[in-house]
Amino acid sequence: MTVRIAVIGAGIMGADHARIIAGDLPGAVLQVVCDASPERARMVAEECGARDIATDPLATIARSDVDAVLIASPDETHAALTLAAIRAGKPVLCEKPLAPNSADCLRVIEAEMRAGRPFVQVGFMRRFDPSYAEMKALLDDGTLGRAVLMHNFHRNVSAPANFTGLMAITNSAPHEFDVARFVLDTDYTSISAFQPAGVDASRAGAPVFMVLETAGGQLVNIEVNNTAAYGYDVRGELVGEKGSVFLNAPVHARINVGLKSLERYAPDWRPRFAEAYRLQNKAWLRFVETGMPWPVAANAWDGYRATLTAEAGVKALSNGARAVIERAERPAFYRH
Amino acid sequence: MTVRIAVIGAGIMGADHARIIAGDLPGAVLQVVCDASPERARMVAEECGARDIATDPLATIARSDVDAVLIASPDETHAALTLAAIRAGKPVLCEKPLAPNSADCLRVIEAEMRAGRPFVQVGFMRRFDPSYAEMKALLDDGTLGRAVLMHNFHRNVSAPANFTGLMAITNSAPHEFDVARFVLDTDYTSISAFQPAGVDASRAGAPVFMVLETAGGQLVNIEVNNTAAYGYDVRGELVGEKGSVFLNAPVHARINVGLKSLERYAPDWRPRFAEAYRLQNKAWLRFVETGMPWPVAANAWDGYRATLTAEAGVKALSNGARAVIERAERPAFYRH
Amino acid sequence: MTVRIAVIGAGIMGADHARIIAGDLPGAVLQVVCDASPERARMVAEECGARDIATDPLATIARSDVDAVLIASPDETHAALTLAAIRAGKPVLCEKPLAPNSADCLRVIEAEMRAGRPFVQVGFMRRFDPSYAEMKALLDDGTLGRAVLMHNFHRNVSAPANFTGLMAITNSAPHEFDVARFVLDTDYTSISAFQPAGVDASRAGAPVFMVLETAGGQLVNIEVNNTAAYGYDVRGELVGEKGSVFLNAPVHARINVGLKSLERYAPDWRPRFAEAYRLQNKAWLRFVETGMPWPVAANAWDGYRATLTAEAGVKALSNGARAVIERAERPAFYRH
Amino acid sequence: MTVRIAVIGAGIMGADHARIIAGDLPGAVLQVVCDASPERARMVAEECGARDIATDPLATIARSDVDAVLIASPDETHAALTLAAIRAGKPVLCEKPLAPNSADCLRVIEAEMRAGRPFVQVGFMRRFDPSYAEMKALLDDGTLGRAVLMHNFHRNVSAPANFTGLMAITNSAPHEFDVARFVLDTDYTSISAFQPAGVDASRAGAPVFMVLETAGGQLVNIEVNNTAAYGYDVRGELVGEKGSVFLNAPVHARINVGLKSLERYAPDWRPRFAEAYRLQNKAWLRFVETGMPWPVAANAWDGYRATLTAEAGVKALSNGARAVIERAERPAFYRH
Repeated sequence: MTVRIAVIGAGIMGADHARIIAGDLPGAVLQVVCDASPERARMVAEECGARDIATDPLATIARSDVDAVLIASPDETHAALTLAAIRAGKPVLCEKPLAPNSADCLRVIEAEMRAGRPFVQVGFMRRFDPSYAEMKALLDDGTLGRAVLMHNFHRNVSAPANFTGLMAITNSAPHEFDVARFVLDTDYTSISAFQPAGVDASRAGAPVFMVLETAGGQLVNIEVNNTAAYGYDVRGELVGEKGSVFLNAPVHARINVGLKSLERYAPDWRPRFAEAYRLQNKAWLRFVETGMPWPVAANAWDGYRATLTAEAGVKALSNGARAVIERAERPAFYRH
Repeated sequence: MTVRIAVIGAGIMGADHARIIAGDLPGAVLQVVCDASPERARMVAEECGARDIATDPLATIARSDVDAVLIASPDETHAALTLAAIRAGKPVLCEKPLAPNSADCLRVIEAEMRAGRPFVQVGFMRRFDPSYAEMKALLDDGTLGRAVLMHNFHRNVSAPANFTGLMAITNSAPHEFDVARFVLDTDYTSISAFQPAGVDASRAGAPVFMVLETAGGQLVNIEVNNTAAYGYDVRGELVGEKGSVFLNAPVHARINVGLKSLERYAPDWRPRFAEAYRLQNKAWLRFVETGMPWPVAANAWDGYRATLTAEAGVKALSNGARAVIERAERPAFYRH
Repeated sequence: MTVRIAVIGAGIMGADHARIIAGDLPGAVLQVVCDASPERARMVAEECGARDIATDPLATIARSDVDAVLIASPDETHAALTLAAIRAGKPVLCEKPLAPNSADCLRVIEAEMRAGRPFVQVGFMRRFDPSYAEMKALLDDGTLGRAVLMHNFHRNVSAPANFTGLMAITNSAPHEFDVARFVLDTDYTSISAFQPAGVDASRAGAPVFMVLETAGGQLVNIEVNNTAAYGYDVRGELVGEKGSVFLNAPVHARINVGLKSLERYAPDWRPRFAEAYRLQNKAWLRFVETGMPWPVAANAWDGYRATLTAEAGVKALSNGARAVIERAERPAFYRH
Repeated sequence: MTVRIAVIGAGIMGADHARIIAGDLPGAVLQVVCDASPERARMVAEECGARDIATDPLATIARSDVDAVLIASPDETHAALTLAAIRAGKPVLCEKPLAPNSADCLRVIEAEMRAGRPFVQVGFMRRFDPSYAEMKALLDDGTLGRAVLMHNFHRNVSAPANFTGLMAITNSAPHEFDVARFVLDTDYTSISAFQPAGVDASRAGAPVFMVLETAGGQLVNIEVNNTAAYGYDVRGELVGEKGSVFLNAPVHARINVGLKSLERYAPDWRPRFAEAYRLQNKAWLRFVETGMPWPVAANAWDGYRATLTAEAGVKALSNGARAVIERAERPAFYRH
């Protein structure tokens, strides 16, 4: 029994997903690559051996030869396409964010709950990264004692071309918002946000530093720095009452040359999280095959909370004051 | 077009290969798991969803519903089963060693050359490990300058139960013999072997230290220490005229606890080389599909040279003197 | 020309200073060890070969056979003893803080300025630590570009016995307040303070997290965690527009044992900062000999700013809001 | 009671020793700097505040205002000057080697034993390096179990101008010969030596690899590579039956810049071993003051064994065969 998958959006993310589906997921078939640009769709389809290409996402979702949908189109289309997939009764892996605003996230949640069974996995792939997994395991098995603080650092060489002022909070930080919630198994109650005065806040990629309080009593600190220049670098430390743990990034060589001992950074996120994407997509395929959400995967509720937190972060930065994050009980539907 | 694979041998290695074939190789099907013990075969077959089990390896190789054969049976059966596969016209991935003695390796080479096309890939998976790949790339792109020395360290917690005196040279070291030849793109001309006087040389796992000279003018040093106690640890450094490079093992977390900052070793090789096995088997599947050997993969000639080097190493240790390793030109058949 | 030094206070800090003076400072003589407890004074004096002991600090400062005074008595006595030394015309190395409140610090400043020449060095020894020195050099030589963020982590195994609720801010953090000001060559304009909700804030050693804004436009983040359990650990990273730098602590060995690769933490600060104390005291001796303050040393103004920042930090934590730190121009007297 | 020291030889080593004596050793006075070149002597004397300069080493040793002698003159003068100091009844710290040939070392030993008390400390400063000290402590306290192998790597950017062919063995390796003997508390029984065929063995700085067997049953491997290009780098690992330990060099910063995470190497040995020299000279001053050799310091016997081992190494390399190192019991005089 093969699962026929449509990838919607053939940009960097969509192309990567297409490669994983075609090359690393036994049981999956890359059925359609859909993009507004037929050239772009064709290029990815050819590279990966997709069976067909398309330009209309809604028609693609509706096709009878498509069993499941991977959404990697622009952020503002995520919610509408996810809703279409739910209506069509087809499981979705939706790249983050589920939607750029929390109201649209809630619409997806309502639709999915009404449908009576889970359809949506959100692409917070860090939950599958072996280093976060080990961090969480060390907390869960008691090695670290009770969690107290978590420090997160998210750095890019330079901001993507399409970035505008606050996307450090709305587009980059959601990865940290989600993975810290996941590791700590709690939710946020407030957020404060700071920006170095020396930077132009309206400039794309201006660094932001956030301090979040959790219902579990921890502080979660997040630096997002999309103009870090020196390399793609995601770091993290979880501090417990008995010890702490740092994430290690995969680095394959240490080089001695020119009076330096050095390890290399990649210019973007792909080498750092290649294994996380592969494992995430494998887990999603299991979910499609069985109808059972994979335990660590992010669902629509997690997507909603990440977006809600980002909205509060934007408010906190503009007000220069702690912003409350409205609490809400996770519906039973989303407890798995 | 799906490739139906028989795995022969359902021990630790065979089971790992079965998992990779079933879980990570689109285009492959785990057709048969064959083991002298039907219980063992069944256990692995059930875990991985194999279509059938068997106990007779020759009959398994001959089955018309088997397209390719992965040999993970005891070392002394490797050559005979590989020869059977060649006769049956079926591609083979043979776990190392190709054979425990060089004469049997030569028999495989003759059969394969007579058959007129390549059938055999040898399971020297380190060639696919990202850290060795990066080491080789840094040599090939000139970063390190001309190679001068290579230091290799191969340590196990304790020797496997079936280990006897010289298997450090004949069973463990071939991994280093092969990967250093591969990285340096040369071959050995001599080997010297030393053993700490304080250890009982007949004892399984007694450490051995070897110094090899290459046709390219380098020294290749190898410590094999199967009683290293502290963890599975493979290290390596390549020293060139302009710089050097160390292999990094994948480690996902750094833990602070109890007055220590620590990273953990696994008790065996699997986490260290999981990615190498996956990539190796993927490359082999391409070879099966296309008939074209994967460029970096080890072939029967490489298997022969590793076994020949081990034989010289045994002689060097017993004589306490440098042993010459007979040179031979790689046949054109094996240049790819 | 030998400098005869009185050490006032023979606790842990005073004893360490006595050892440095006696064992590592050519040109210095340990003339008197003074402590309220004559036994404690005698013990340190005997270990270090001091010429005399005493119990009255003011009388000790006044002795004609004492050329300079090192103050390592309890915090609340620092200002009064420093003032006495200024009156006696004798140079002082005063352990931090210069005084627990900023008003007393200002009194020292007034007295020193009235005296017309510098007498006071404050024991912010981190300025002499080779790792902070290298961090600062990398900023000053342009390697890092303009400074944007500085992350500071100050962790102890457990809080000292005499610690009470807010001493994380008033006693521990001043080291970070001072060294970040020093590295960045700026001063603070505001401080925000957070505490994990799960800890009892009145408990000694409860962790505190602070975010400071600087006149130079940087954010300075400080974790003080005196109940970190796993070891004494001071970390720091300075992030600039072109790169970042981490402090490395001195660690002499990496140990492989018991499935771990580990480095050891000391239970307290002494091994981490031994070299910094030695270099600081050597610089102070030069100051005593020449009358010229050592360029990187902390003076009374620096001591005042650190205490003022701590006072604002206490206010910020109790109000749950950003506290302004009153700016003031560094007097010309303290620019060297 | 002040010790008046003459430094003989004002080259790089002599100047460093003069700085340590003048700046870091309370109780010592830099009385004379003696060098064949009066300009060189004057330069060092002025920098360090020496009381006098001289050009005649024998006359300097004989001066009544000189209590002890530090010999940092060219290697071939070491033995004669050390003998002169013994005759004058003055303690000596002699830079390594004690003499370039073992016969001269034996002459020093005879003279010292005839004199009836110890006078000579040899400048094998690595015994005082904190990383070797920790390595030895981990062996001595049982953490590592019984020692099995020791790997040593000694790399320079480029060979000193005065280097000729075999000085890798006779001049560089003695540091490793001595420190491995010291750490393992044993002596050598044989040495084998190898050289990469691709290098011109007569060329200064050609790399050499040595394997030594010890009376304690260990293998000691040594790479000396004086043309390593990338930096001054001394590494070492001691492998025991229960675990292993690596030396850590002091590095104060880790820098992220230009797609690299890097630590810097110094171009020469001074930063790596600054602390070892300081502690060595401090220990020697105690020896001068008390007449009791410092427990870990190298004495004339150790100097002799290092030179004898180097002589065997030269023979082993030229013969291409294991060379026996003649055993001899350490005289009671040298057991302390």
